Amino acid sequence: VKAILFDVFGTVVDWESGITRQLQKHAESRDARLSRVDWLTFARDWRKGFWAAAATFPRNQDIEDFNIDDVHRRCLEELIPKYALEDVWTEADIHEITQFWHYLKGWPDSSPALHRLREHYIMSPCANGTLRLLIDMAIHADLPWHAIFTSDVVHAFKPAPRFYLRAARLLRLQPREILMVAAHAYDLAAARALGFRTCYVRRGTEDGGGG
Amino acid sequence: VKAILFDVFGTVVDWESGITRQLQKHAESRDARLSRVDWLTFARDWRKGFWAAAATFPRNQDIEDFNIDDVHRRCLEELIPKYALEDVWTEADIHEITQFWHYLKGWPDSSPALHRLREHYIMSPCANGTLRLLIDMAIHADLPWHAIFTSDVVHAFKPAPRFYLRAARLLRLQPREILMVAAHAYDLAAARALGFRTCYVRRGTEDGGGG
Repeated sequence: VKAILFDVFGTVVDWESGITRQLQKHAESRDARLSRVDWLTFARDWRKGFWAAAATFPRNQDIEDFNIDDVHRRCLEELIPKYALEDVWTEADIHEITQFWHYLKGWPDSSPALHRLREHYIMSPCANGTLRLLIDMAIHADLPWHAIFTSDVVHAFKPAPRFYLRAARLLRLQPREILMVAAHAYDLAAARALGFRTCYVRRGTEDGGGG
Repeated sequence: VKAILFDVFGTVVDWESGITRQLQKHAESRDARLSRVDWLTFARDWRKGFWAAAATFPRNQDIEDFNIDDVHRRCLEELIPKYALEDVWTEADIHEITQFWHYLKGWPDSSPALHRLREHYIMSPCANGTLRLLIDMAIHADLPWHAIFTSDVVHAFKPAPRFYLRAARLLRLQPREILMVAAHAYDLAAARALGFRTCYVRRGTEDGGGG
């Protein structure tokens, strides 16, 4: 193995507690109507909305102009009537909240493990996000990547084979020289079918967990 | 300014002394015929060959499957008869020498400056190379990039406008929010025409220097 690719949302960063905490903190500074919202459930619903949107993305053709902020924003707006939050958040609030995904914390083991592994392997996320999102996340959560593979860089969405194969091609490595790490079985199954080595990480929030 | 993009060959790394030193060291362990070669001149000729090849790359359409190792190898093979080195290097030697570009050292100020600047700005190379070359170079010369923009990632070759504009688009920044740093006037002129801020770094080997 010469390189290790990581799924990020759920595998490297703890989106569930991160989004919940940021929503709670934002609510404390705003309208009293926000105090009765269960923000953990809200965060999980937001993530479910993203999965539902993702299911509609094309698998067998290139994705141009992918912007995860736009997807997160649309999913957020769908939750507003469900949680009876009309007229509570301003346009600026909605923009700010959409950006919360850029500032997630890593799981406690993530940053130390990445710092150790990078001494021996090329390390990159392989994430259904955008380059800017992953840069902001890397800065905020101290994730020392060598390179970043995201949907707007490789024009594909996991588990499309072209995502994994383009990452391998850009690394000038064969799939068997690359270890794919994820907390999602579907992600590893797709990589393994292409000849990648795989490593499953169990996280409480993924694969049957809250999100 | 929120991000700083760097030209790499000549600006961040000292290709001239790096290639010369690696060629000299390699020659010492091989055929005696290699001892009479002026490796500094050889290195400069190799770089000139690259510029000549680059002049033929398309500017107004996407470049698919760009591999700088292939270009470096072709230019190296053209120098073999010129320096009367037929039958001196084996196939394995030629492969090894082509890889020398992956292991260049930074100029003495490069790594310390990048480490300081990355605390305040998003930092990325903007280089006519490949992602793998820039990863190897970053590891070897301790260049702490947040992201890497290369010809095989953005499917373009500087000074094509689409190279700079795609980097800005992936960073989700306007050109005026990005500073382009280079030791080549042509590179900065192209970026400035698109609205980027620019910074010229004088290096002895570039813009009228040896290479």
